[in-house]
Amino acid sequence: MSEENGLDVFGQKWLPRLEAEMRVVLSAPSNAARRHYQMMHYHMGWVDESFQPGAFGTGKRIRPLLCLMACEAVGGDPALALPAAAAVEILHNFSLIHDDIEDGDETRRHRPTLWTIYGVPQAINVGDGMFTLAFASLLRSKQAGVADDRVVAALGRFTACCAALTEGQHLDMWFETQSHVQVADYLRMIEGKTASLVATSLSLGALIGGATPVADDALYGFGHHLGLAFQIQDDILGIWGDPGVTGKAAGNDILRRKKSLPLLYALNHPTVGPQLIDHLAQPLDESDLSDVYALLAASDAQAFAEEQMHSHHEAGLSALAEALGDQAVTSPLRALADDLLLRRA
Amino acid sequence: MSEENGLDVFGQKWLPRLEAEMRVVLSAPSNAARRHYQMMHYHMGWVDESFQPGAFGTGKRIRPLLCLMACEAVGGDPALALPAAAAVEILHNFSLIHDDIEDGDETRRHRPTLWTIYGVPQAINVGDGMFTLAFASLLRSKQAGVADDRVVAALGRFTACCAALTEGQHLDMWFETQSHVQVADYLRMIEGKTASLVATSLSLGALIGGATPVADDALYGFGHHLGLAFQIQDDILGIWGDPGVTGKAAGNDILRRKKSLPLLYALNHPTVGPQLIDHLAQPLDESDLSDVYALLAASDAQAFAEEQMHSHHEAGLSALAEALGDQAVTSPLRALADDLLLRRA
Repeated sequence: MSEENGLDVFGQKWLPRLEAEMRVVLSAPSNAARRHYQMMHYHMGWVDESFQPGAFGTGKRIRPLLCLMACEAVGGDPALALPAAAAVEILHNFSLIHDDIEDGDETRRHRPTLWTIYGVPQAINVGDGMFTLAFASLLRSKQAGVADDRVVAALGRFTACCAALTEGQHLDMWFETQSHVQVADYLRMIEGKTASLVATSLSLGALIGGATPVADDALYGFGHHLGLAFQIQDDILGIWGDPGVTGKAAGNDILRRKKSLPLLYALNHPTVGPQLIDHLAQPLDESDLSDVYALLAASDAQAFAEEQMHSHHEAGLSALAEALGDQAVTSPLRALADDLLLRRA
Repeated sequence: MSEENGLDVFGQKWLPRLEAEMRVVLSAPSNAARRHYQMMHYHMGWVDESFQPGAFGTGKRIRPLLCLMACEAVGGDPALALPAAAAVEILHNFSLIHDDIEDGDETRRHRPTLWTIYGVPQAINVGDGMFTLAFASLLRSKQAGVADDRVVAALGRFTACCAALTEGQHLDMWFETQSHVQVADYLRMIEGKTASLVATSLSLGALIGGATPVADDALYGFGHHLGLAFQIQDDILGIWGDPGVTGKAAGNDILRRKKSLPLLYALNHPTVGPQLIDHLAQPLDESDLSDVYALLAASDAQAFAEEQMHSHHEAGLSALAEALGDQAVTSPLRALADDLLLRRA
């Protein structure tokens, strides 16, 4: 990430204010339910298991940064969009709490997941609490000075995004029970699970910054394509990433039979597909990886996925140009998009 | 329920329209995620396990009726409040889906609970979907013709209610792990779990009907006291109700050691408490019930609970009179409150 693209400068200015906003929204009332909120603080990386303050992994805050940048890009004051930025980050974190339960994941950001410590019942309810506070955060836009019609429009986008998130998660779990999944269905799933919230983050910032409907839609489109490109990049790195850089074991996604874009493309390939299906139907260990990689290569799955990624990257940049005109090229949004898609981990 | 109080007439007119509104909000898009919505329809009592239409138990729709009645009581058109009424009923149903998972309950309205059929992961996500659609429903008020400032005010009440629900559920689960619970803490719990949504149902109808802030607050207060009285009545019936009327086995709440108001009052009684604690620390069966009932009688727990119930009933009627003046006496809200608290099941 280079200094001159303005990304670091923007983050240094706004991330501490975002953090402060989220701490206000998620603050514990001084009553018997305090523990309910302290569990949220554990998940956010603010406290340890015993609720003692500390600095733990918090994630990259990409979505709220996109929200604040979009607000500035359309000529608004990012301070007005702080409640909305906090809302998208809190919503994202709520979805991780429930996803971790649903997927049985025991580790998140190098720490035990919430449900492994406090039990599934409390963790479900803590997720519901954070879901609620995401809406509460967005409603604070009114106190920040956003007009009622903009608040209602933002809530419309936000609610549609929540519906898309649950549809995407439904499909993700449903696919795990299906032997055959089409590439188009997979793309619909990541549209719901990933692209929708990225797009909504940008749209909320745009709406609050006073964007025209055309600019708002264009920024939503930029986020939609960016989100898809980002997820496809993630899928590619999960199979061909450098383990020394990604921190994940080589072939990990293959050994887990994770339904990602390259694997589904190869499974649907007319000649490679049947052979790959046979391979995956048997127990897999590291000695099988070279055969699977050879089949993936024979199907051109990597080229297909990279083409998809680049095509969404390009479509995203077109949408950004439509939204911002000449300013698109020097916008920190452009820098962030390029950074995300050139990453190697 | 007598004809002349207007309750039946109101329900016959508005319940079918409420049902239609909820079916629109929870309608399945014709895409791969259709099954996600069909699971909601199962929980709502509209379809069977295989998603074939049928008529199953749906609950009494008390909350949406209160919402629509409050709108009419302040001079508004109940049609404007249909989206809000649908929202409170959908929110209530969402909370039941997650509560059933958290409590491990296998039966609801004489049918298997959602999680027992489709698994915990999908059921958590279906709950999240309905939580989302409760907000989507409330936002439809705008399309119904409600002004933006009223929509934002209603969303503020609704979000605060969601937070109270999760706090109440947190306390309920937390109390199960505690040997000693104070009566005041218990009342705080049912305030969050029960009274808050009843109060909010009334307030949303009032806000949408154009109530003054004073009338809105008074109707909220009416709902708050009504909700508390209703829950305390439920607690009393759980211990002293006629099994032939309630349909529950005699002493069921005692055998389950359910932390209800009369039991907690007796457990906190200076002389009876220690004896009751000893009893409950040992395995319980029906032969122990007469001893437990004798201890409850010695503590005057029933009189205490009934006094609490009547006091909330009275406070509720005062609030209703404050909100509606002379019309309070003949209002269907008054009839519904009296009906609920004179019930024997």
